[in-house]
Amino acid sequence: MKIGFIGLGNMGAPMAKNLGEAGHDVTGFDTAGVTVEGVSPAATMEAAVEGQEVIVTMLPNGAIVRTVHEAIVAAADPETLVIDCSTIDVESARAVHDLAGEKGLMSLDAPVSGGTGGAAAGTLTFMVGGSDAAFAKGRPLFDIMGAKAVHCGPAGAGQAAKICNNMILGISMIGVCEAFHLADRLGLDRQAMFDVASTSSGSCWSLNTYCPAPGVGPESPADRDYRPGFAAELMLKDLDLSQTAAEKNGAATELGRHARDIYERFVGAGGRGKDFSAILERLGAG
Amino acid sequence: MKIGFIGLGNMGAPMAKNLGEAGHDVTGFDTAGVTVEGVSPAATMEAAVEGQEVIVTMLPNGAIVRTVHEAIVAAADPETLVIDCSTIDVESARAVHDLAGEKGLMSLDAPVSGGTGGAAAGTLTFMVGGSDAAFAKGRPLFDIMGAKAVHCGPAGAGQAAKICNNMILGISMIGVCEAFHLADRLGLDRQAMFDVASTSSGSCWSLNTYCPAPGVGPESPADRDYRPGFAAELMLKDLDLSQTAAEKNGAATELGRHARDIYERFVGAGGRGKDFSAILERLGAG
Repeated sequence: MKIGFIGLGNMGAPMAKNLGEAGHDVTGFDTAGVTVEGVSPAATMEAAVEGQEVIVTMLPNGAIVRTVHEAIVAAADPETLVIDCSTIDVESARAVHDLAGEKGLMSLDAPVSGGTGGAAAGTLTFMVGGSDAAFAKGRPLFDIMGAKAVHCGPAGAGQAAKICNNMILGISMIGVCEAFHLADRLGLDRQAMFDVASTSSGSCWSLNTYCPAPGVGPESPADRDYRPGFAAELMLKDLDLSQTAAEKNGAATELGRHARDIYERFVGAGGRGKDFSAILERLGAG
Repeated sequence: MKIGFIGLGNMGAPMAKNLGEAGHDVTGFDTAGVTVEGVSPAATMEAAVEGQEVIVTMLPNGAIVRTVHEAIVAAADPETLVIDCSTIDVESARAVHDLAGEKGLMSLDAPVSGGTGGAAAGTLTFMVGGSDAAFAKGRPLFDIMGAKAVHCGPAGAGQAAKICNNMILGISMIGVCEAFHLADRLGLDRQAMFDVASTSSGSCWSLNTYCPAPGVGPESPADRDYRPGFAAELMLKDLDLSQTAAEKNGAATELGRHARDIYERFVGAGGRGKDFSAILERLGAG
């Protein structure tokens, strides 16, 4: 397939590289002028868009996605499938679907989980919103860039699923960290806390798979001095998205809001650039 | 073994019955005068305590446990092992260990998870604090009354592990319910939310095993009109215990406190007697 890839940052670059290595004809563009092995560089965004069968974007936020997709829709061939893999607000995601639809283009919102490690290894999970036909056309590319793609529903459903999932994640990570901290203060061994909770009703991904306590559970960022992984400021971004969506849609998510506030304080107090599980250290210091 | 069992309520009665059915000589006492199949009734607490090798207690709170254990220690034979299976505050648990120790009795704090269903089926999990020798002596009884017993550490470690675990549980259940509620408001299908989060970083016992959304995931109290299961007021009791322990020991558990407050409001607003997962309904109504 002829693929245009816009946004070659920490996530986009390895994703584009994996598409190229799988034999696709990939043309890439990034405002920072990044070059990626196996990806033909385009001098302008339009040059990356014209004549492609699929356009993939991986961009920092909803405002940039809206601007870039306006340019894409203006320059793209009819029949092009436009896939946005950025994590953005549901409203912007639906707006760019509408934009594509007005010109008769197929479109998908397809945010990912799995981080830069998953992008490099091609093991991302895609949460996808859009029509069945668009999902069917995009699926082979998801299979290259990731290990799993879930079709969550119509336009915006991918973003909705991602922010719902990550709201659970942010809340449960803080809960697990508070439990380790309380265990410390009660003189309960961290390994004993892990042994009980990881096999009981406290079990969760934040504890069992990504344990925030160094030396306990499977290897995780805690065992690498909290190098991310999934950085605290990205968790804050996702919790911001879920709270914005909750406010706009009248949803009651007060524990989600509290988790957002805790991550905001953590990022402001030295947490930026650390893994989101490093919040355990801050509790101990508080 | 000759066993005295004090506290034959919803949990204690089936636990005592299982010990009797396994061939032990069980004498039971309850202030309410309950009789249990296979358990010899004692007219007084002292009659249930004298001449026993093991005394098991299953009582409502720390104050009652302290009073009952004073009577036990006064009447028990030397060499008796005293096991308290109640869920109580860590401080009271340590106080009754001290009480037993002063008279040379062995003791264990051994709160359970698994609810009345687990008590009846003999599939409880015991979280146990006390000496290695005491744990070794109690183990055969745990194996009858439960499916798992974890030795968490010295006196009080069982209670500490339970409140840490249940703090994670309370927090994650609210997080999962808020995520379903947000999904509803965003027009994201609940099944799609479950499919993504239960296989991703949002996976947790509250979602995967005990899903609060009716008709989604494995069968749970949500599918039985939120009949408990694990009642909301018991979750509130456990979150109270964890916050009391946090305050007394200078631990920072602000999300745990918020979860406690949410359950307090829920119990006060019609949640009493419902399963703790029914909080999803309240979010929808809020």
